[in-house]
Amino acid sequence: MKKEMIYEGKAKRIFSTDEPGTLVMEFKDSLTAFNALKKGSFEGKGRVNRDIAALIFKELAKSGVKSHFIENQGETDMKVRAVKIIPLEVVVRNVLAGSTAKKMGIEEGRVLPRPLVEFYYKDDALADPFVSDDQITVLGIAAEEDLRELKSQALKVNEVLRNLFLKIGLKLIDFKLEFGRIEQGMDLGRIVLADEITPDCCRLWDIETNEKYDKDRFRRDLGKVDESYQAVLKRLAGIITE
Amino acid sequence: MKKEMIYEGKAKRIFSTDEPGTLVMEFKDSLTAFNALKKGSFEGKGRVNRDIAALIFKELAKSGVKSHFIENQGETDMKVRAVKIIPLEVVVRNVLAGSTAKKMGIEEGRVLPRPLVEFYYKDDALADPFVSDDQITVLGIAAEEDLRELKSQALKVNEVLRNLFLKIGLKLIDFKLEFGRIEQGMDLGRIVLADEITPDCCRLWDIETNEKYDKDRFRRDLGKVDESYQAVLKRLAGIITE
Repeated sequence: MKKEMIYEGKAKRIFSTDEPGTLVMEFKDSLTAFNALKKGSFEGKGRVNRDIAALIFKELAKSGVKSHFIENQGETDMKVRAVKIIPLEVVVRNVLAGSTAKKMGIEEGRVLPRPLVEFYYKDDALADPFVSDDQITVLGIAAEEDLRELKSQALKVNEVLRNLFLKIGLKLIDFKLEFGRIEQGMDLGRIVLADEITPDCCRLWDIETNEKYDKDRFRRDLGKVDESYQAVLKRLAGIITE
Repeated sequence: MKKEMIYEGKAKRIFSTDEPGTLVMEFKDSLTAFNALKKGSFEGKGRVNRDIAALIFKELAKSGVKSHFIENQGETDMKVRAVKIIPLEVVVRNVLAGSTAKKMGIEEGRVLPRPLVEFYYKDDALADPFVSDDQITVLGIAAEEDLRELKSQALKVNEVLRNLFLKIGLKLIDFKLEFGRIEQGMDLGRIVLADEITPDCCRLWDIETNEKYDKDRFRRDLGKVDESYQAVLKRLAGIITE
């Protein structure tokens, strides 16, 4: 099934397959932060993230949000539609934390009056700079209508996931999405959700204690990284039915 | 006329006066760059910048762009309307240069298909972070309608100044504006152009040779800072009539 590796990222590998328009995404056990300056891993991390991402993609599909997800395969792999990634990381924030809180000199935890959508230009060499709508369109990174589409899909994902995580006792503080355009076959050219949604790219805080269940445990050396990721999977699996 | 000093910035001092709603802005000889990490000065710099700013404010008024400018006073002073500054630096770019070129990994000099408007949150302690429209409105820095007003005024200023500088052989590459709300008297609450427009906050390149006539001569140790500022004033004075 898996043929050639066509891309290796920090937490995943992408393989070509025999099926046209179909790829395999393999989730690795590695964990990185601060643009890969900090590196780590834990056994079973690839599997737990693959499983979380699959549950979330399925749940989103029920609400009409299309993604590249086709099905799980083996222990750490996911069959996905081939997409051309739009070079923007789309961040949605419900509560201020991380880089934006720091940049604005605001303490983490401020609840925002409405979700904040941010865009970062995907370029490791430039450390993914924050960009405005006007920079995106004037510099030709994305067209105005595509930008509107990304925002609207990102806010829809936020709505669905916020409710989903609340049901398992977690507040969705913020998260990062990537989108791509279907490269072949049905829905050719359509913009769909791609990459992954896992504790690697979300902030999830316990609704009572604000305890973290996400990659900040690794970034900030808080311990129990493995256990937190497993807890998220266990709780999600407990409420999501096929 | 000048009473108490109520504010001292990097290149200007603001004084209260006897007249209600009126302040005096004094232009200093100092020159700073990189959030004041680099410091310098030249004799007569306050005067040349005061004179350039006054000519430009008058020229903008002819095109319907209102500012805080009332009239010149003495050698380095300008009588202005008292305004409450909106904490945003508004940058307009016609050609890519400076921080945005660097951040995006693009060589300086790329002509943009349309003017790019950027906002930076005015806060020295945070080094004036770049902010998006959504950050500005969600974090309550400015209301959506005020943001629209700032953009529309900034683009109008760009149109007028681009033509003005072309007439004296200079390309307006980019510039920074500040706006404020009239605090007292006529037009109370109205958003008007404030601060200054001078080679301290513009990039001006010779239309033939791309030689710089702005603060980059100081920032990048290119020499002839004084002469360049004086040349801009001389050429402007040669074409602007009261």
